Amino acid sequence: MGKAASKKIADPFSIGINLETGEMANPARHLVRRASDMRGHYADPAALEKLIKDQGDPLHYEVFEVPVPQEDGELMYCISKLQPGAVGGEFFMTKGHYHSVAGTAEIYLCIRGGGYMLMKTADGKSAAEKMSRGRMVYVPPFWAHRSVNTGDEPLISFCVYPGHAGHNYGDIETEGFPRRVFQANGQVVIR
Amino acid sequence: MGKAASKKIADPFSIGINLETGEMANPARHLVRRASDMRGHYADPAALEKLIKDQGDPLHYEVFEVPVPQEDGELMYCISKLQPGAVGGEFFMTKGHYHSVAGTAEIYLCIRGGGYMLMKTADGKSAAEKMSRGRMVYVPPFWAHRSVNTGDEPLISFCVYPGHAGHNYGDIETEGFPRRVFQANGQVVIR
Repeated sequence: MGKAASKKIADPFSIGINLETGEMANPARHLVRRASDMRGHYADPAALEKLIKDQGDPLHYEVFEVPVPQEDGELMYCISKLQPGAVGGEFFMTKGHYHSVAGTAEIYLCIRGGGYMLMKTADGKSAAEKMSRGRMVYVPPFWAHRSVNTGDEPLISFCVYPGHAGHNYGDIETEGFPRRVFQANGQVVIR
Repeated sequence: MGKAASKKIADPFSIGINLETGEMANPARHLVRRASDMRGHYADPAALEKLIKDQGDPLHYEVFEVPVPQEDGELMYCISKLQPGAVGGEFFMTKGHYHSVAGTAEIYLCIRGGGYMLMKTADGKSAAEKMSRGRMVYVPPFWAHRSVNTGDEPLISFCVYPGHAGHNYGDIETEGFPRRVFQANGQVVIR
């Protein structure tokens, strides 16, 4: 317990998460991504510009959290809320990221809605896991990950990742994800 | 990404957790603690022996999990299910533990039932957080933790902790927790 003595030990706390709606009570931090933040991510850039113009740059996804120290041993957690919709037939999705410390996992426990977790590794492996209420997706270390909402209500997940993981958006923006999820004739198609 | 290349990268997976009942579909590992496993933990040892004898060593609590590598960067997770009941007026509880790597946190998201998370540090600080459906308790690094069921149905939580955390039951068995939770005249009392 030598390390405990040499640094201040934080106090326990608790927060409320509505397990029906996915709402977090009194989040300390609220990250908002609008359609305009998603430039460069969809297959049809013109369709995205039209959506931004026609709908006044609508909400795309949000992250709610109560931060803890960004250190190894701590656990960051959040509620991720992705709106329903499509851009040129491609379902709304998050930007996606690797972790800055690439060898760190992430857990997504889906509370509401439906869709997919798309994942890829730097050396070209690719995977997709279906998300629905009560489905817990394990994103192992070294996998970039992006969620996609294929339903008609928000896709809401409770997420946990190591405190020191950080976010690396740059590499996946350059690489792109090998699979995309579209609506075609009322069907969900992964290409 | 050098570390990624030098070790095998695990594949993503997903599992089902019923967000009403707390049941995990197809757990790979199932840990069972019976009343006889709790010797040395309750204030009234004679009452525990009577319960073991009268009720045929009943189930006390269970842990359901699908293991991942026990390494830094991975996230272990489980469903913890603690039965309702009392031993000499003291509510059923788990043994409680520090982590072997003491500076690692744990998250408990309560899915069903009600009770308390009792916590303490090696240097004598003590805390209690109430648990109920949708309540997420953050157990910071260096805090030993034990859950207590004060309700009349199982207390079920979804738990996440760092892969390399491990369990240290020995130190807290020697130290004991400074607070206990009793039923007295129909009330829940922390002493």
